[in-house]
Amino acid sequence: MVQNVSVGLLGLGTVGSGVVRMVEGHQEELLHRVGCPVYIKRVLVQNLDKERSCHINPELLTSKADEVVSDPEIDVVIEVIGGIERAREYILQALSNKKHVITANKDLMALHGAELLSAAEENGCDLFYEASVAGGIPIIRTLVDGLASDRITKMMGIVNGTTNYILTKMDKENLTFEEVLKEAQELGYAEADPTSDVEGIDAARKMAILASLGFSMNIHLDDVEVKGISSITSEDLEYARQFGYSMKLIGNAKKDNGKVEVSVEPTLLPDTHPLASVQNEYNAVYIYGEAVGETMLFGPGAGQLPTATSIVSDLVAVVRNMRLGVNGKSVVAPQFDKQLKKDDEIAGKYFYRLHVKDEAGTFSALTSIFANHEVSLEKLLQKPVGDNGVAEVVLVTHTTSKQQNDNIYQQLRDSGVVNQIKSHYRVEGGAQ
Amino acid sequence: MVQNVSVGLLGLGTVGSGVVRMVEGHQEELLHRVGCPVYIKRVLVQNLDKERSCHINPELLTSKADEVVSDPEIDVVIEVIGGIERAREYILQALSNKKHVITANKDLMALHGAELLSAAEENGCDLFYEASVAGGIPIIRTLVDGLASDRITKMMGIVNGTTNYILTKMDKENLTFEEVLKEAQELGYAEADPTSDVEGIDAARKMAILASLGFSMNIHLDDVEVKGISSITSEDLEYARQFGYSMKLIGNAKKDNGKVEVSVEPTLLPDTHPLASVQNEYNAVYIYGEAVGETMLFGPGAGQLPTATSIVSDLVAVVRNMRLGVNGKSVVAPQFDKQLKKDDEIAGKYFYRLHVKDEAGTFSALTSIFANHEVSLEKLLQKPVGDNGVAEVVLVTHTTSKQQNDNIYQQLRDSGVVNQIKSHYRVEGGAQ
Repeated sequence: MVQNVSVGLLGLGTVGSGVVRMVEGHQEELLHRVGCPVYIKRVLVQNLDKERSCHINPELLTSKADEVVSDPEIDVVIEVIGGIERAREYILQALSNKKHVITANKDLMALHGAELLSAAEENGCDLFYEASVAGGIPIIRTLVDGLASDRITKMMGIVNGTTNYILTKMDKENLTFEEVLKEAQELGYAEADPTSDVEGIDAARKMAILASLGFSMNIHLDDVEVKGISSITSEDLEYARQFGYSMKLIGNAKKDNGKVEVSVEPTLLPDTHPLASVQNEYNAVYIYGEAVGETMLFGPGAGQLPTATSIVSDLVAVVRNMRLGVNGKSVVAPQFDKQLKKDDEIAGKYFYRLHVKDEAGTFSALTSIFANHEVSLEKLLQKPVGDNGVAEVVLVTHTTSKQQNDNIYQQLRDSGVVNQIKSHYRVEGGAQ
Repeated sequence: MVQNVSVGLLGLGTVGSGVVRMVEGHQEELLHRVGCPVYIKRVLVQNLDKERSCHINPELLTSKADEVVSDPEIDVVIEVIGGIERAREYILQALSNKKHVITANKDLMALHGAELLSAAEENGCDLFYEASVAGGIPIIRTLVDGLASDRITKMMGIVNGTTNYILTKMDKENLTFEEVLKEAQELGYAEADPTSDVEGIDAARKMAILASLGFSMNIHLDDVEVKGISSITSEDLEYARQFGYSMKLIGNAKKDNGKVEVSVEPTLLPDTHPLASVQNEYNAVYIYGEAVGETMLFGPGAGQLPTATSIVSDLVAVVRNMRLGVNGKSVVAPQFDKQLKKDDEIAGKYFYRLHVKDEAGTFSALTSIFANHEVSLEKLLQKPVGDNGVAEVVLVTHTTSKQQNDNIYQQLRDSGVVNQIKSHYRVEGGAQ
């Protein structure tokens, strides 16, 4: 039986330092849990002389990746350098050297997950990636093990903390997107280049990973429809409140009759929805299973120690497998071929805020556009805007198809009845 | 390698029928997940001739437990008969015959968990019990695996659906406890004898199981302080709302400096607490870990298919272990000896609703009782009740010890200043 386990760490940034802290600081618990000592043997860094936020023996540091991924004494490689190509190359090397791999890299898993998982299987190695989605929430383990026997038909996630923080703050303090973003950047909650977060790309990567697992199908990042939050205004949030909704950036993955849709977009949730009360930088994933019904996992989506917790939990699983001699057996290949829904198979309700001419006949012309597409309205509100002869109309449709809604959107834009489509969002209905 | 797996089922009530439905109805998925067929070979029932709600071959039924727990062809025994002694005996027999066991029996696990787990380990068998706490929520797996590397310092749970349903309904529709209980009984949400639910005993059993796992310590049912919901009034809920609280029956497990407290009692939660928005019959468990921070799992606490989902997930885990030849290795013995907090080590805030004489000096006498115990007040409200010279005083203390609060309670009762202590609850503070 394995007598002790050496770990190689690729990267010593925020998360890497957290892993060092947790492994060093929890020696007694780790020993109890896995039955043998676990220690960090080597750490890849870019700059050997940089000051470190965690206490680490400088002799462990190296600037040569090969000294980690090819060291015959290292059993497990933890990848926290981020980025795509370099991380992919190191992980493939580590796997071909029969090292188990743990990664927090959602970008990599969303793009190359299938390739890396099959490389792990071929080499009889574990490849775990709990930390790649929703930092401290054990969502991947839940999908793989906890709900193993159920048929999951729907997942909705708040899987990006930065955007949830921005939307919460805009809503509570009546601030604009730009104001909150600036503040978030100053506080370090948002990156200097916030594109990946605010445009929904980060969330889309996570939803590709979740949908692949939950639906047992290879879902690629390109399969995810993405829309960000940068055009959301205070007016939108105000109307949402009036209608009893909360605005969230929602990753939505749904399966009907074997076909799936996956999207990330600003979505109006009824205040009674379990995700509606998820505030600030927190993440949550709502899962609907045929047997289990509604469940939700809530927790920190990022942060040094939450992310390190998930990584060290993966490490515990790898070491237990090593001691039992069963690594590389946990990958379950996708059960189904990918089948994406067409636009006329995607159902939704939609919110519109429109500026129209405040004159006789406009309202009737407007509503007839919806009626002509056989879409009825669930909520409707009209009020004058200033004294420039413009009225604001806010409405929510009943459930229709994405295709029908796209047709309506085009006709609203082109018909001459509407001056401007101020905003347009998906609305989550009460029904499944 | 194991080529197929036969399951023996003890009990064919609601949950047992759900297990049959899920195993029969998910053959293809099960085969994909575990790599071999899994079928139900024998089912213990009390009455062979009773009509069944699930489709089952009558030849599988038996009224002799021995034909399940001693059948050499049966690999896994699922216990869903409930009760204590008979279930314990059958499980011990099954384990001594080297059969893996899955149980949904919280009463049994809360009382005899340690004994059964060590019997399983001695026989090299798995004993899984995910369904025993919070039906469809994979909370046990999360504590054992997902947060394996963290130090959990606090768990708070809404782990009884019946009481949460009653409290939600009382609050929303302004009904009395008795009215809602009667309705719940008629709808089948509450038992004819509701004692175990409404007096908090069911929740206490679950908290003993969770605390044992989360704190790695043998916590027995007797270690849990229990108070039920039957004396909660509409007035209490009304004042709670005014103060910005929601009333929930909360299982509370807390660890400080190696010592633990475990209780189940009606508790006022700030409306911003993640558990405050858990409505109706839903369950949720909030976990605070040193590294991960706040997480929460939410889902159905009971019901045929949610509970069966957890059982079949356990079954998938057992079968995977069988195919890898690693059963009986997942039990981690408690790391720590049990140490319970004394009353002066338990911290809390407390809510009081008091009837006092509406006359000069009373108010000062009342507040000086708190001041004499060095407890200050966070919220205070006084109003006359009718015209009988009685005033109602409602207050919330700042954090104090349970010991100090017990002293205050006694003095309030005996001092002559207070006519009646109408109600008295624990209040969850904002801080950890």
